[in-house]
Amino acid sequence: MAAEISARSFEVKSDVVLLGHGSGGKLSHQLLDDIIIPHLSGIPQKHQNDSAVIPFSGERLAFTTDSYVVDPIFFPGGNIGDLAVNGTVNDLAMSGARPVAISVGLILEEGLPMRDLERIVRSMRQAADQAGVAIVTGDTKVVTRGGADKIFINTSGIGVFDHPFRIEGNGARPGDTILINGPIGDHGMAILASREGLELGSDIQSDSASLNGLVALLLKSHGKHIHVLRDPTRGGVATTLKEIARQSGVDIALEECAIPVRQSVENACAILGLDPLYVANEGKMLVIVDREADREILDLLRRHPLGEKAAVIGKVDASVAGEGRVFLRTAIGGRRIVDMLSGEQLPRIC
Amino acid sequence: MAAEISARSFEVKSDVVLLGHGSGGKLSHQLLDDIIIPHLSGIPQKHQNDSAVIPFSGERLAFTTDSYVVDPIFFPGGNIGDLAVNGTVNDLAMSGARPVAISVGLILEEGLPMRDLERIVRSMRQAADQAGVAIVTGDTKVVTRGGADKIFINTSGIGVFDHPFRIEGNGARPGDTILINGPIGDHGMAILASREGLELGSDIQSDSASLNGLVALLLKSHGKHIHVLRDPTRGGVATTLKEIARQSGVDIALEECAIPVRQSVENACAILGLDPLYVANEGKMLVIVDREADREILDLLRRHPLGEKAAVIGKVDASVAGEGRVFLRTAIGGRRIVDMLSGEQLPRIC
Repeated sequence: MAAEISARSFEVKSDVVLLGHGSGGKLSHQLLDDIIIPHLSGIPQKHQNDSAVIPFSGERLAFTTDSYVVDPIFFPGGNIGDLAVNGTVNDLAMSGARPVAISVGLILEEGLPMRDLERIVRSMRQAADQAGVAIVTGDTKVVTRGGADKIFINTSGIGVFDHPFRIEGNGARPGDTILINGPIGDHGMAILASREGLELGSDIQSDSASLNGLVALLLKSHGKHIHVLRDPTRGGVATTLKEIARQSGVDIALEECAIPVRQSVENACAILGLDPLYVANEGKMLVIVDREADREILDLLRRHPLGEKAAVIGKVDASVAGEGRVFLRTAIGGRRIVDMLSGEQLPRIC
Repeated sequence: MAAEISARSFEVKSDVVLLGHGSGGKLSHQLLDDIIIPHLSGIPQKHQNDSAVIPFSGERLAFTTDSYVVDPIFFPGGNIGDLAVNGTVNDLAMSGARPVAISVGLILEEGLPMRDLERIVRSMRQAADQAGVAIVTGDTKVVTRGGADKIFINTSGIGVFDHPFRIEGNGARPGDTILINGPIGDHGMAILASREGLELGSDIQSDSASLNGLVALLLKSHGKHIHVLRDPTRGGVATTLKEIARQSGVDIALEECAIPVRQSVENACAILGLDPLYVANEGKMLVIVDREADREILDLLRRHPLGEKAAVIGKVDASVAGEGRVFLRTAIGGRRIVDMLSGEQLPRIC
């Protein structure tokens, strides 16, 4: 139903907020273009990355924010707390920054069990410790029962750059190789299976993890060859690659056969009519690199626990006249255009 | 009713989150002490200020976060958008930092009118421009109808220090003078009057404003004499002074007659049985200074549009054996102990 509403709204612009405006896909971009960017920040989408970069005292600081409204708050592989830490750590890491400090803003619904709150904040601390980042400041608000759904968490983060490289969404170059550090769709399908009580997907775990350690390794040994890093969360790999293609002004060619998907995720997606390319990930990153270093980078990824199943999944078209398109060569040899997510596939996925 | 529940919970610790846990008063401190601090940050309350201070590249950075859940979202004197910007700008300013960059995390309820959203983000931009701070990064989530109440906003902020002074909650010294930059209780009573449709308070406007300009002036001319700056938001002047007294290990003596309160606010408070000392402010600050400079600082405050009605409202007891108590000398010459807000006076005030 949400998809139906959202699809219509492309023709008649909606005068109210729709679920699809939070999808990370087309409607989200429309909301940004129409209201948020012109009135709030003024920063064009072409220059938008997972973190803002602020000059400070001769150096650069990365600054990012994300709110988490995932439902359910506990799911296989994690909970809203570690998700909130990992997500913001990853946003910093994807800009090439080393995460340093995180803030936590809690919005609690009256009646939330204290033991749930405790479990969540414990997980946050654990995730932060694991990522080597300090939780330095926080805020807690409580709203009347029914005014919010259990708990929402905002995490904002500050990072620093230990290297001179620019890692930005507009950095993909013709001929570059596109890698991913493992199978896609785990987080989205874990949430969906858990929410709907699907027996089918009951063994699927969220991939929620902080990628900053892996990014640090990559940058240390191959910094000059890394052009883009981005975590395909809301909207999935398809939407994220489409954003990169547009920002960089290139065309991208994906190989369907090469994209790693767990059998359980593929099965659950097939039955529900979902395309794993559009399903959210929370511990994956797209790594777009110089072709000459791609084998070495693949090897490096595979030697890390968070990259064991890394793969080359496509390349940036060698033509310099890219138009921001993404093509998928399908398993049976066809070629189709990949667009951003339309409407809302899975609300409250993160 | 909320107050009743909250009062009880001091005897039997609540196993669920209560409205009072978001009051900024005793229950909020209990929640921090019992769950948030031990499991999340590990930073003791004594060292908690409106912003965290992070060493960076030989300098210091201020970092803060706040979520806004105010109800109603539009009120006399402002809306949730400018409130969210002013609040975070003030948290940075109260630590003595110059606000530089702000992040915005929006949580929207499906069905929120687009024109409301537009009005809110326009106000945010306007408030940011007025305060001279850039909105550099953001995030938007949408939750299903009924999953949140219209709109919640998190703003986090980064600030820098242009001076060597330490402005912290533990800086109050025996003999110091306590000033405030104007009449108290405006914000809280504006919200309450607007929420309840009270005719009585219909002329009361929120005092929501960014205080960083005024703070910069103060620090420039009297930096070495400024010991504490803090904005008495949730929990009001009483709760904030109690926090400072505890953090600094001093006793504080307030003069009831000297505390500026608008007649309309005093009337509305009297009828509703509220004490303006506990009502939230969003454009006020407590300024605790060296006695020798207090007249000059008062004059400086009064020459600024946001300090025209500034006043000396009390002093830090000269005895060095302070126990973190706050006393109020009442209008009729009595003396009573001022404690933190118990329970929840006005939920969702900011």
